[in-house]
Amino acid sequence: MQLGSIGEFALIERLGRLLPAPGAEVVQGIGDDAAALDLGDGRLLILTTDMLVEGVHFDLAYTSPRDLGYKTLAVNLSDLASMGCGPGYALISLGLQAGFEVEAAEDIYRGLAECATQWGGRVVGGDTVSSPQGLVLNLALSAFMPSDNMITRAGARIGDMIMVTGSLGESSLGLELLKRGLRPEDDAARVCVQRHLRPNPRLAVGAAAKAASATAMIDCSDGLLADLRHICEASGTGAAVEADWLPISDAARQVAESLGLDPVQAALSGGEDYELVMTLPPEEAEDAARRLNLTSVGVIVVGSEGMKVTDQSGRAMVIEPPGYEHFTEGA
Amino acid sequence: MQLGSIGEFALIERLGRLLPAPGAEVVQGIGDDAAALDLGDGRLLILTTDMLVEGVHFDLAYTSPRDLGYKTLAVNLSDLASMGCGPGYALISLGLQAGFEVEAAEDIYRGLAECATQWGGRVVGGDTVSSPQGLVLNLALSAFMPSDNMITRAGARIGDMIMVTGSLGESSLGLELLKRGLRPEDDAARVCVQRHLRPNPRLAVGAAAKAASATAMIDCSDGLLADLRHICEASGTGAAVEADWLPISDAARQVAESLGLDPVQAALSGGEDYELVMTLPPEEAEDAARRLNLTSVGVIVVGSEGMKVTDQSGRAMVIEPPGYEHFTEGA
Repeated sequence: MQLGSIGEFALIERLGRLLPAPGAEVVQGIGDDAAALDLGDGRLLILTTDMLVEGVHFDLAYTSPRDLGYKTLAVNLSDLASMGCGPGYALISLGLQAGFEVEAAEDIYRGLAECATQWGGRVVGGDTVSSPQGLVLNLALSAFMPSDNMITRAGARIGDMIMVTGSLGESSLGLELLKRGLRPEDDAARVCVQRHLRPNPRLAVGAAAKAASATAMIDCSDGLLADLRHICEASGTGAAVEADWLPISDAARQVAESLGLDPVQAALSGGEDYELVMTLPPEEAEDAARRLNLTSVGVIVVGSEGMKVTDQSGRAMVIEPPGYEHFTEGA
Repeated sequence: MQLGSIGEFALIERLGRLLPAPGAEVVQGIGDDAAALDLGDGRLLILTTDMLVEGVHFDLAYTSPRDLGYKTLAVNLSDLASMGCGPGYALISLGLQAGFEVEAAEDIYRGLAECATQWGGRVVGGDTVSSPQGLVLNLALSAFMPSDNMITRAGARIGDMIMVTGSLGESSLGLELLKRGLRPEDDAARVCVQRHLRPNPRLAVGAAAKAASATAMIDCSDGLLADLRHICEASGTGAAVEADWLPISDAARQVAESLGLDPVQAALSGGEDYELVMTLPPEEAEDAARRLNLTSVGVIVVGSEGMKVTDQSGRAMVIEPPGYEHFTEGA
């Protein structure tokens, strides 16, 4: 059977089943944003990794090596944030083609260093190898956190409010500008492009989510609906999203209009926003929204209702295919 | 400047200089087999990563996906062994081409699981993405060890004996058999091929090296001389290797003869043996050799003497280019 006939998540599940059961110290294994090991002293060690491949995850035609280095660390820090964990220690592997410029490799490291300085991570090691075809990066992060601060995807309860940080859709709209070869010529376009190239890992909000009574959390990398689906699957619930509650910035609306795209679809399915999506008991939602600057986008419902999005008039919306999934046809 | 004009190690040094200085908790940063973080409770967290790229590090024509999975974990465990650390927790990233078979991906995981079961590691997470061209694997390992058991590359002293585990040269001779398309038809060939496809990480000896008074240690991945050079550079010493002391198995001699190759050159420069190379004060060498089953191969000398190999009659030997180095011309 070829990969194209099976989705990324189905594949990961099949692969995970082949591994021996982890020990009791593995609090969280394969299946969340990161793995968690109990250090036995009230701390967890959180481990996460991401591979980025040229032509799949980035295009050097419109991503500078420096932005690429920055983003590679930022998206992994976002995985930590989604567990309620602060920044950590990175190992970076680079697979470089023979013709690659040393200066470009240095720029990748400059971007890593810039992101590390801004958000508090540290690059402590790595591997640099040759690649016959294209650039490949892999980043692995290790970080420590108090055991009782961890939040996983499982834990959402019926009636919980679904809340997000920041705003949604800008990153995919920025990517669309880049793909069409449009140089950002106004502030709105610059905001969207910048959001795509240099996402902000929401480390502070992530670390404060548990104290604010969040029950489940994930970072929004594949698109709000795709990531919310992970929460629903892990929690055995459904979700009802209200389209007109979505936090969509003026910049996103303006760029969407200029591109002839629907900003609501971008917010629901665009992906790579790296905002946090969390669920909170309704009685805590207002307070958390104020303190952590969150926006309610819907409510957790019973599992049999599945995932649905309703528009302003209460009608069910037709949703574009959810966020990027590797391997499946047409992705 | 293109990568071809600069060696891997020079590149890594240039890149490392661009990173902010790590905090005091980083006991060992870039420049050894692994990074080490002080957990503050008498333990270190050891971190290491390796990227393996199809066509550079392996050839699926003669490496089964299962062997590949096994070896990917084994060589990272060997990096842990070389720090004096036991097995740990792995994150595996796979970059898979669209046409790749699901069953082959599963076989990679079966190999990982087999190695983990045999040596004690655990795979706790990963990332699976599509790759436009060829297979890419990245493995990152995290492991805990007592702080006072760590051995780095720096620490060799003039007069220390240079000692190795097991035997040298089999792996590169096995690779040569595979490259020439020769099916192993006798035990000697099978031993060499097996050593190449399924190296043994020397975890037990590595963990016992500090107690046996080892002063510096590295694993033999690039070839004895290349790896010994890392010890010499980090320790500010030279090394004098005696060719006729090298542990070369009958299998290696037999296969070398059948291939028209010199088994001594294979032992000195072949690479991928994943034996441990350590230095020990002369008064400890005999006892350590007996307890840990080590073989003396030479002695640490003053730095100005550089690295030299002498044959049975005491003549300086001409050495083939040292072990594999990425990026440099002709590599």
